[in-house]
Amino acid sequence: MTVAPAPTLLAARIDAVLAGFVDGQRLLWPDDDLRPMLDTVRRFILTGGKRLRPAFCYWAWRGVAAPEERGEDQAAVTAGAALELFHCFALIHDDIIDAGSRRRGQASMHEEFAAAHARHGWRGDARSFGRNTALLCGDLCAMWAEELLTGCPTAPVRLAQAQRLFAVMRAEAVAGEYLEVVAQAMGDFGDGARQRAARVVQLKTARYSVVRPLQIGAVLAGASDAVLDGLAAFGEPLGEAFQLRDDVLGVFGDPARTGKSVLDDLRQAKPTTLLAEAFARGDVRSRAVLSAHVGDPALDEAGAARVRAVLAESGALAAVEERIAAARAEALRALEFLDVAEESRQALGALADFVASRSV
Amino acid sequence: MTVAPAPTLLAARIDAVLAGFVDGQRLLWPDDDLRPMLDTVRRFILTGGKRLRPAFCYWAWRGVAAPEERGEDQAAVTAGAALELFHCFALIHDDIIDAGSRRRGQASMHEEFAAAHARHGWRGDARSFGRNTALLCGDLCAMWAEELLTGCPTAPVRLAQAQRLFAVMRAEAVAGEYLEVVAQAMGDFGDGARQRAARVVQLKTARYSVVRPLQIGAVLAGASDAVLDGLAAFGEPLGEAFQLRDDVLGVFGDPARTGKSVLDDLRQAKPTTLLAEAFARGDVRSRAVLSAHVGDPALDEAGAARVRAVLAESGALAAVEERIAAARAEALRALEFLDVAEESRQALGALADFVASRSV
Repeated sequence: MTVAPAPTLLAARIDAVLAGFVDGQRLLWPDDDLRPMLDTVRRFILTGGKRLRPAFCYWAWRGVAAPEERGEDQAAVTAGAALELFHCFALIHDDIIDAGSRRRGQASMHEEFAAAHARHGWRGDARSFGRNTALLCGDLCAMWAEELLTGCPTAPVRLAQAQRLFAVMRAEAVAGEYLEVVAQAMGDFGDGARQRAARVVQLKTARYSVVRPLQIGAVLAGASDAVLDGLAAFGEPLGEAFQLRDDVLGVFGDPARTGKSVLDDLRQAKPTTLLAEAFARGDVRSRAVLSAHVGDPALDEAGAARVRAVLAESGALAAVEERIAAARAEALRALEFLDVAEESRQALGALADFVASRSV
Repeated sequence: MTVAPAPTLLAARIDAVLAGFVDGQRLLWPDDDLRPMLDTVRRFILTGGKRLRPAFCYWAWRGVAAPEERGEDQAAVTAGAALELFHCFALIHDDIIDAGSRRRGQASMHEEFAAAHARHGWRGDARSFGRNTALLCGDLCAMWAEELLTGCPTAPVRLAQAQRLFAVMRAEAVAGEYLEVVAQAMGDFGDGARQRAARVVQLKTARYSVVRPLQIGAVLAGASDAVLDGLAAFGEPLGEAFQLRDDVLGVFGDPARTGKSVLDDLRQAKPTTLLAEAFARGDVRSRAVLSAHVGDPALDEAGAARVRAVLAESGALAAVEERIAAARAEALRALEFLDVAEESRQALGALADFVASRSV
C-alpha cells in the first residue's frame, strides 16, 4: 500500500524535476550573453502554472499501474514534467501569436524581452526583438520537452508508445492553433463559426490538454486499448468543458486570479464558442454591438462591459454554462465505467470538478 | 562490394523519404482548413535545398559502417531526412526573425502566407498573419523531425546516441540564433564584435550544419569516440568556412543562384565576421559609409554597392577569403587522419571543396 501524493506535493515534485533539468541544461552554456535567455526561461517554467496536464498524466498512470508498481512513479512524474515543458512552449508561442500582454500574472515573455531591449537602449524595434527572442525561448522549451521525455525511466516499449502519443499531441496542438489563427483572420461568425470553434476546442484543448496527457500516463503503466478508449471518453468532454470555461474566464474572469487580461480575447476576436453563440443568438442590435467592439484592438473596459451585457442577454453565456455542465456530467459518467484504481477515479473526478468550475 | 550513391541520387532518396513522411502526416488531417498549411509546408520541404546536412550525415555513416553493412543504409538516409526537416524549421523561424523576403528562390514562408491573407481580403494585419502561420509551420517541421528520427531503423542503443546528439544540436542552433539576435540588437561592431561573430558561427553553423550531422551519421554506424573527435576536427573548421562563405554570398552573391536577397544581411546589420572585420580595419571614411548604410532598412542597391566597395578596399573581404582557405585546409588535413573508408574520405573532401567555394 503506497500513499497517494496530495495535489500540491505532486506539483512540487514536477517543479523539482523541471528545476533539475533546466539547471542541468544551464551548466552546458557558459556564455554570458546566453544567461538572460536561460534565466528568463527558467523563471517562466517555474512561476505559476496549475500543473494540470501533469496531474492528468500522473493519475491515469497511477490508475493503471499495478499496486506494487505505484511506489515507483518517477516515469509518470518525468512525463508530466515533459508535458509541462511542452505547455510552456505552447504558451510562449501562443502569446506571440495573440500578442497577449499578460501570462501567469506577469508580463508575457515577448513583452519582457521587449522591455529589456528598451531598457538597454538597443537598436531596432523593441517589439520585434521581444517577439524574436521569445520565439527562440519557446523553441527551446519544445526541444527540452522532447529531451526530458526521452530520458523517462521506463521500459523501451512503453516509452516508444508514450513518444508516439506525444508526437500526435504536438501536431494536434499546432493544427488547432493554426485553425484558430485562420478562423480569426476570416473573422466569420456566420454559419460555420460554431463548427469551426468546436474543432479548435477539440484539437487545441480536449486532445492536447486532457486526452493525450491521460493516455501518455496510461501507456507508461502498460494500459490496454480499452482503458485508452475509456480515457478518451472521459477526456474529450472534459477537455471541452476546460476550454469553454477558459473562454468564459477570458471575458468574465478576474485578471487578479487568472493572471490573464480580460480584454485580449475580445480585442483579438478569438473565434470562441461563446462569441459564435452570441452572434448566432443575438438580435440586430446585439450583433451591432458585437461587430463594433469584437476585434477592435483599442477596445476599452467600457466597450468590454457592453459586449459582456450582450453575451449575457443573448443567452450565449447561459448556453455555454449549460454545455460546460453537460460535458462535465458526460465526463463523470465515462469515469464511472473506467477500469482504474479507485483512488485515481476519485482524483480524476476532483480534477474534472476543478477544470469545469475553476475561477483561476 | 556496394556501389556508393551519386550526390543527386542521395538527394533523391532524401526527398523520397521526406515526401513519404509528409504525405503520411497529411492523411491524418482531413480538415479543409488545414490543407493550405500542409500544402505550403510540403512544397517548402521539397523545393530547392542543397541537402548538405544529409550528405554529411550519410557519408560519415558510410565511412564508419562495416563493408557488409553499407548496403543497408536506410538509417542514414532517414536520419539525413530528419536533419533536413529540422533545417526547414530553422529556415522558417530564421526568416521570421530576420524578416527575410526570399528563400530558395521563392517568397519566404511568412511572405507567402501574408500574400494569401491579402488575396483573401481577411481581417487584421497580413504581415502578422504571415508571421504567425509560418511560426506554426516551423513548429510542425521541428516536431516532424523528431518523429522521423524516432522511427529511424537501427539498434535502440545507436538511436539513443543519435537522439542525444540531435538534442545537443537543436540547442546549439537555437542558442546561436539567440546570440545573433542579441548581437544584432546591440549593434556593436566594436572590440567584442569579432569574438561574438565567431561564437555565433561556431554554434549556428559549424556545430549545427556540419559537426553534428557528421556525428549523428557516425553513431548510427557505431563509431568510436576517436572517430567522433576526428569528425569534429574536420567539421569545426569546415563549418566555419561554410558560414564565412555564406556571409560573403549574402553580400556579394548572385541572388539568381543563391535564391536569397543580397540586401537583407546589410539591412539587418547581421553581426557577421565580414562586417566586424570591415569595422575593425576601415579608416574613418570607411566606417562612416558602413555606419550610414549597414542597418538601414531602406538600403538600396546603390548603397549596397558603396558598402561592397568598403568591404573590398578595407581588406575585410580578402581577410575573410583567406580565413576560408585556411579553414578549408585545416579541415582537409583533419580528414586525412580520419579513420573512415576511402570512398567516404573522397566524398567528404568533395563536400568540403563545395562548401568552401560554392556560389549557391
